[in-house]
Amino acid sequence: MAGRMRVGVVATAARLEPETVRRVTALAAAHFPEIELFVHPNSHLAAGHFAGDDAARAAAFMEIANDSGFDALWFGRGGYGSGRIAATVLPQLTEAARRKTYLGYSDAGVLLAALYARGFPGVVHGPMPADINRTGGEAAVLRGLAYLARHDAAALEPSLRAGAKHAAFNLMTFSQLIGTPYQPDLSGHVLMLEEVSEYMYRIDRSLFHVTSNPAVRAVAGIRLGRCSAVPANDPDFGQTEEQVVRHWCGLAGIPYLGRADIGHDADNKVVPFGAAPIA
Amino acid sequence: MAGRMRVGVVATAARLEPETVRRVTALAAAHFPEIELFVHPNSHLAAGHFAGDDAARAAAFMEIANDSGFDALWFGRGGYGSGRIAATVLPQLTEAARRKTYLGYSDAGVLLAALYARGFPGVVHGPMPADINRTGGEAAVLRGLAYLARHDAAALEPSLRAGAKHAAFNLMTFSQLIGTPYQPDLSGHVLMLEEVSEYMYRIDRSLFHVTSNPAVRAVAGIRLGRCSAVPANDPDFGQTEEQVVRHWCGLAGIPYLGRADIGHDADNKVVPFGAAPIA
Repeated sequence: MAGRMRVGVVATAARLEPETVRRVTALAAAHFPEIELFVHPNSHLAAGHFAGDDAARAAAFMEIANDSGFDALWFGRGGYGSGRIAATVLPQLTEAARRKTYLGYSDAGVLLAALYARGFPGVVHGPMPADINRTGGEAAVLRGLAYLARHDAAALEPSLRAGAKHAAFNLMTFSQLIGTPYQPDLSGHVLMLEEVSEYMYRIDRSLFHVTSNPAVRAVAGIRLGRCSAVPANDPDFGQTEEQVVRHWCGLAGIPYLGRADIGHDADNKVVPFGAAPIA
Repeated sequence: MAGRMRVGVVATAARLEPETVRRVTALAAAHFPEIELFVHPNSHLAAGHFAGDDAARAAAFMEIANDSGFDALWFGRGGYGSGRIAATVLPQLTEAARRKTYLGYSDAGVLLAALYARGFPGVVHGPMPADINRTGGEAAVLRGLAYLARHDAAALEPSLRAGAKHAAFNLMTFSQLIGTPYQPDLSGHVLMLEEVSEYMYRIDRSLFHVTSNPAVRAVAGIRLGRCSAVPANDPDFGQTEEQVVRHWCGLAGIPYLGRADIGHDADNKVVPFGAAPIA
């Protein structure tokens, strides 16, 4: 088909199950025939925690990123591992890499941050192929595909505003970038943060960390995404996630702007970094 | 008794049980009659996760720190909460506070870091009263008391060297200070890091974070304390804690100096920050 869009799926952290790939490929073919999905074979490797060792994952990332035949690199899955290849891949990215869209979230936020810090224009926080395994996850995958295929406005996080700049991260992932060369300049940005499977005291601690960073204090404001699967605190923490984020924003002088429609779930909406492409 | 040393115990995070206080007080009286132990009543308050709300804990900290009648402030227990009072107490500390010894570890590392960053000379990583509840914990408490009473050389971490500078932290606590005003300048220091109850992938991630910080790269080297109670990774992480720290030190150009005799256990040795007071 002429003008097909080529999307390369790379697993930079945990591996993708063959069944996940089969389902996502079938879903994409049925709904977005204009997309040609290529799943890099690294996605099925296994090396301990990871989809192949650091060298294999770095090579896979670069093979897609630096190939001008691909329009987008789609992170396959979160977990942990993107930071392990950052120092290797970043210096080797070419102009072809710069012209590409990068879509993912969670652990992939390490590379999203690093690419945005280097001025890459197509950095996007949103659903990944592995989301198909969530309850209702097909909707998440279709949302990611709709953004990739045609920048579908229905896929976008609803608080995005034309003229404003945005960024979105998993809170702990972002926290582990603070004070490193991978931390992007988010001054003037609306910063959206979501969390999953962290105790409330850890959400509080990460917000202490993030909002104590002088550069983060230059954001236009913070929106809180969903904080899901929070384990029970013993004793009860005594404050809700919204009380916690209001506390730290208040202390830091950062405007708290309300909730964001992002999270580790099937409803996770798309947040392009930088100035929103809103009609 | 003339010349008694006055030590004030403050719970800046989780509360102390009355039985803990009773046992530590009796132990101190039996072995170190030269120490007068004062347990601030805030230690028994409860406000959700904390030993009293932020205002109560901050007031308790300042009452001991700014009272020239106390020679030392002994953090009662870890958990989480010291960072919540840092912004309040730091600007209010007086010269009396500067002349004091501060002993603790784990979550208390937030305030140890902040005090050391402000040039306080008596910042010390070591056992706390709540350690009496560990198996063999009396030895830990006695070690802390021996350091407070007479800077007992037997209490010190054995790799400390005269003329060298040292600092010690819980890894995650230290990670959550990177890029904040609480991060001390540790250039030229031997940095000791220990961890407890964190998955190996999180130990890896925190070491990625810490060793990616340009200021941390100026340390003289890193020693790894004990990493205890590491939950099972699924799949197996595939690397040991020592492989992980060697990886990140190697990538960062930081000398890895071997193990440190610190950890969340009864064997936790004392590490005075800065130049070691070795005879």
